[in-house]
Amino acid sequence: MSACQFTITARDQQSRARAGVLQTPHGVVHTPVFMPVGTSATVKSLTPDEVKSHGAEIILGNTYHLYLQPGHELIARLGGLHRFMAWDGPILTDSGGFQVFSFIYGGIADEIKGRRPPQSSNLPGQERVKVTDDAVTFRSYLDGSRHVFTPERSIEVQHALGADIILCFDELPPFRAGYDYTAQSTDRNHRWARRCLDAHERLTVEAPPGKLPQALFGIVHGGVYADLRRESAEHLGSLPFDGLCIGGSLGQTKEQMWDVVSMTVPHLPEPFPRHLLGIGDIDDLLENVARGIDMFDCVSPTRLGRHGTALVRNRENRWRLNVSNASLREDDRPLQEGCPCATCRTFSRAYIHHLVRSKELLGIRLISLHNVAFLLNLMHEIRTSILEGRFGAVYQAWLGRSIGANTGP
Amino acid sequence: MSACQFTITARDQQSRARAGVLQTPHGVVHTPVFMPVGTSATVKSLTPDEVKSHGAEIILGNTYHLYLQPGHELIARLGGLHRFMAWDGPILTDSGGFQVFSFIYGGIADEIKGRRPPQSSNLPGQERVKVTDDAVTFRSYLDGSRHVFTPERSIEVQHALGADIILCFDELPPFRAGYDYTAQSTDRNHRWARRCLDAHERLTVEAPPGKLPQALFGIVHGGVYADLRRESAEHLGSLPFDGLCIGGSLGQTKEQMWDVVSMTVPHLPEPFPRHLLGIGDIDDLLENVARGIDMFDCVSPTRLGRHGTALVRNRENRWRLNVSNASLREDDRPLQEGCPCATCRTFSRAYIHHLVRSKELLGIRLISLHNVAFLLNLMHEIRTSILEGRFGAVYQAWLGRSIGANTGP
Repeated sequence: MSACQFTITARDQQSRARAGVLQTPHGVVHTPVFMPVGTSATVKSLTPDEVKSHGAEIILGNTYHLYLQPGHELIARLGGLHRFMAWDGPILTDSGGFQVFSFIYGGIADEIKGRRPPQSSNLPGQERVKVTDDAVTFRSYLDGSRHVFTPERSIEVQHALGADIILCFDELPPFRAGYDYTAQSTDRNHRWARRCLDAHERLTVEAPPGKLPQALFGIVHGGVYADLRRESAEHLGSLPFDGLCIGGSLGQTKEQMWDVVSMTVPHLPEPFPRHLLGIGDIDDLLENVARGIDMFDCVSPTRLGRHGTALVRNRENRWRLNVSNASLREDDRPLQEGCPCATCRTFSRAYIHHLVRSKELLGIRLISLHNVAFLLNLMHEIRTSILEGRFGAVYQAWLGRSIGANTGP
Repeated sequence: MSACQFTITARDQQSRARAGVLQTPHGVVHTPVFMPVGTSATVKSLTPDEVKSHGAEIILGNTYHLYLQPGHELIARLGGLHRFMAWDGPILTDSGGFQVFSFIYGGIADEIKGRRPPQSSNLPGQERVKVTDDAVTFRSYLDGSRHVFTPERSIEVQHALGADIILCFDELPPFRAGYDYTAQSTDRNHRWARRCLDAHERLTVEAPPGKLPQALFGIVHGGVYADLRRESAEHLGSLPFDGLCIGGSLGQTKEQMWDVVSMTVPHLPEPFPRHLLGIGDIDDLLENVARGIDMFDCVSPTRLGRHGTALVRNRENRWRLNVSNASLREDDRPLQEGCPCATCRTFSRAYIHHLVRSKELLGIRLISLHNVAFLLNLMHEIRTSILEGRFGAVYQAWLGRSIGANTGP
């Protein structure tokens, strides 16, 4: 009884890129797909209508945040997350693990994505977080209150939220944890994955009539170590998941992240949809689609929007435009020429520059909407090119290089 | 050569309320009308499309803010305020006077509206602002830079912005200024009104071909003093304005404000549209329509939205609902039952409560949109009732009392 059906519809000849269709109880998702993140049941500053009309087929919600505020039980009483936030399309919730460990270790989110070196010498077991084989104890970032998460608890919370796709609860050791701790943690994550499957099966069986089925994805760990990644991929691939994520430390640089994906994907079962957790830079989307990833999520489009940065077709500047830059003061062009989003159809750079300078909320809104649309349009372009057998040309056009050997089949 | 044509289409039998049609170069405005305020070329957190689709026919822009950032000359170079902010309907700009004096005296904005007693003993001529018969010197709230405004300068700036309706530059003495200063200031405002008319005429004659005509409204002063109000109304009513505003101190209580309107309106020429500056509480809209006001503007719907307060049909609580109140935690109803706005059609109080608690921008957006729509719908209800000869019933339904003697013809 699978809650989501994945069908691969096209494969690229030069790389591992593939296009597929994922069917969920709330609708169809065309892959490769980018999922805007609605952390606290809102894609920040945007309405569900806007996100949907600009091409989003699925969004991601954060279990950790929703568990703390307003609480999963309240959301369940109000009819589940879809109804609560008025998004009637597919939703994926993460397990809470990422946030629990991010808030505790500090900087892990950046470190995992290779954006900066470790900031502290904290290691699991040395500080405020308590990780045992059974559970993780943490304090709320809202009020300092003490909470205990177990694999079973995470799955219970995610069943209450009611997303179409839910994730296993996992520990995320930082890059600096080293081989031995990463190996131990990966083993424990495998035991937790089993417990998540069992809890999911029990809750699915016990679900009241009419409750829509949910799909459960496992999360492959192993840090930057090829043998651990392979072992994790093969182990989780043998369990009855509906899909698999690549999680944990992806190294300290983009290249190392791409290598981790390259060393992992070949050991994942072909039929499973593959989700690379938390990644959304332009080059990372293209590189990882080429390596066989089907699903992406990232807060970057709305986070960049809040910081006044728009995504544009400018590789030299990492596809970013600082909208508060004085050079935009009288720039009558849209953020991106040819962009079909509501922001670019209506407003000039000069106007949005003025809004950002004036600290107007509309500025954040307009840039966030453009950024979300920009990534969704990129994914649409990528997907179409795979279906039409010309992904290599799109890759080349965006990155200015041809698909490398390590991305090939 | 009038840039706006006003036609009275219906009159209430029990009061001075009237319905009319105001034609401007950017479209028709049906009065009585509420104008959402777009201080810095944005109705805060909302798009022009949203504001228009929820019933706004005209919005107000603030000359003071736009003059300082991004600058009226830049807006003119980019095609004028309509194009800059992508609002193709009618716009009214104020003269900058209100803000110049508000920022200087401190608290005058509240005092004028009768919301609180004077906070300081500053009086004109005693402090940082320099007011002479010729000009006002003030410092920017943005960077402290020194600026000089004259009646001519204000009209020049407003011609550069290009609103359909522009206002005379005026001094706003606070309530505490007393009779003598208010009388002197009113006289000076009359001299400034003449200078504004002259500058407007000159700039209109000199305007490049194709520039749309602008209407100029005078501003009646006189504080809370009946003889000064009458003198001001009669004097300005004899000049070739396109409409008249009631400005200056309206006293310290709502009742005093209503009295000021009652003592002023009978002396205004019937054919002129009448704008009561900066007023937008529910009871004030009804009371002042009953006293013969045609046009209103106020920042309150979006300001309340930013503070998590929604407008609702609850007279006992001054038509306000504190959305962050814990009682809304599981309230599955819309902000206002039966409200046709996009917020109420889509989202529950529980969800918006969650957004406010989580400090999510979407919460501000949704409440602001509802509040703007709420006032626009109220004005639509009022206008329709005047046209259908049943304004008294609407007044009674909202205020729980019948129209008083002092509002009558």
